Amino acid sequence: MTLLPTISGHTRVFGIIADPIHHVRGPTLFNEIFQKSGYDAVMVPLHITSAELPTVWRGLRDLRNLDGFLVTVPHKTAAAELCDAVDAAASLIGAVNVVRREDDGRMVGAMFDGVGFVAGLRANGYEPAGQSVLLLGAGGAASAIALALLDCGIGRLTIANRTSAKAEMLAAQLRKVIPNAEIAIGTADPTGHDLVVNATSLGLYLSDPLPLNPELLTERMTVAEIIMNPVETPLLSAARARGSAIQYGRQMLDHQLPLLAGFLGLPGYP
Amino acid sequence: MTLLPTISGHTRVFGIIADPIHHVRGPTLFNEIFQKSGYDAVMVPLHITSAELPTVWRGLRDLRNLDGFLVTVPHKTAAAELCDAVDAAASLIGAVNVVRREDDGRMVGAMFDGVGFVAGLRANGYEPAGQSVLLLGAGGAASAIALALLDCGIGRLTIANRTSAKAEMLAAQLRKVIPNAEIAIGTADPTGHDLVVNATSLGLYLSDPLPLNPELLTERMTVAEIIMNPVETPLLSAARARGSAIQYGRQMLDHQLPLLAGFLGLPGYP
Repeated sequence: MTLLPTISGHTRVFGIIADPIHHVRGPTLFNEIFQKSGYDAVMVPLHITSAELPTVWRGLRDLRNLDGFLVTVPHKTAAAELCDAVDAAASLIGAVNVVRREDDGRMVGAMFDGVGFVAGLRANGYEPAGQSVLLLGAGGAASAIALALLDCGIGRLTIANRTSAKAEMLAAQLRKVIPNAEIAIGTADPTGHDLVVNATSLGLYLSDPLPLNPELLTERMTVAEIIMNPVETPLLSAARARGSAIQYGRQMLDHQLPLLAGFLGLPGYP
Repeated sequence: MTLLPTISGHTRVFGIIADPIHHVRGPTLFNEIFQKSGYDAVMVPLHITSAELPTVWRGLRDLRNLDGFLVTVPHKTAAAELCDAVDAAASLIGAVNVVRREDDGRMVGAMFDGVGFVAGLRANGYEPAGQSVLLLGAGGAASAIALALLDCGIGRLTIANRTSAKAEMLAAQLRKVIPNAEIAIGTADPTGHDLVVNATSLGLYLSDPLPLNPELLTERMTVAEIIMNPVETPLLSAARARGSAIQYGRQMLDHQLPLLAGFLGLPGYP
């Protein structure tokens, strides 16, 4: 139980779309923001299957007191296609993690996973500018993080992915947006890198293998994770044991909250 | 501010559809019920225009964690048409004030305004069985109340409406459902009646004329109102001054809450 503003006919409504829905953290986090700031709004979970997303989307467009919604698995790509406009990161990646509903029903999407990840690094005292980064994975989350890291001027990005063609494709896309970026395709060997980012799903399940050989990690490295549950993945535990600095997956979300709040038009957020 | 359960991904969602939306009381009343019973659910306002109702309706049908919604002005009639099934009162009246979403997406509507009104009377110690009732108005609310009063065995119903053809039509419909009911079309003269019900909109605005001549009210009569705002209409004030018993409009809603809760499947309600 927590103290929330009373919901009345004046209350603005926000959602989070997902399938399954039970694990989402958005309502807890945002309702806390609304409460602290005295903003008369509420975020509710919206359980929508992929097959039904287009129909529900048309309905959400016409819900006049809905101001926007977070987007999570499996809707990030489909929602980007349904949006009337998206920001540069979403356009490159082809995925959104938040949608704002404008007064006229237009749906505007954005992708904050990458900038949220970088904000988390900086909040931990790690400045990525000039650093050499090994990125494991080449999917949606990896793309968002790669773009945000290049945007803040890392020295070198190496992409390691099980399917190297996918890594090549991501590299080509990134070079189009940031032509002078130093991007290579490599292996999961972290030797010589300052920052290692696991943007694969390895670590979600206890039976998963580690995404790299932990004996190659050093105390000069920072190892960052995007997996939120478990909070500390086997990779992070191994990195900690080797003396590396670590960053938890949920810091990516925690540090993008102010960005999401600003995008959704909450007062007091830029 | 009030104490509400934290909204998580497990929370079931309810709505209330209306246009305008700012005046609705449903979320406050139902969130209080959820809180008191420890039921993990939340009711939010859903602002939908009449033109957009069909589109939003299709979306709501596919919202898997939505269990239902209250229906209020101007959607009661249109919602009845959109439902896959409705109860007997809704079918007679052609209007619903609540819709339950079944697991398979079927929308089942019902109309509790009439039985809520009667529950309010009884809670005030007034038993309508055998009584002579003057009903002012022949619209949706009047129809619902007429049916509920006849269902609990009033002795005689007189319908007074500005357009008498509409009163005749309602009488004919009621006779179809309850063939041996004593129903007459009459004037707004309350003489000889035990219960007078104002089911017109006269009293919503301060400039409205009274729906009847208050000098004809006596202390043996009960005068009931369906207008909720103002809480005490000029008619009720006049009736009180004449020594009549009175029933406020909002008692119709207050006393149908348990019925709505039961219909919406809340645990602990029949």
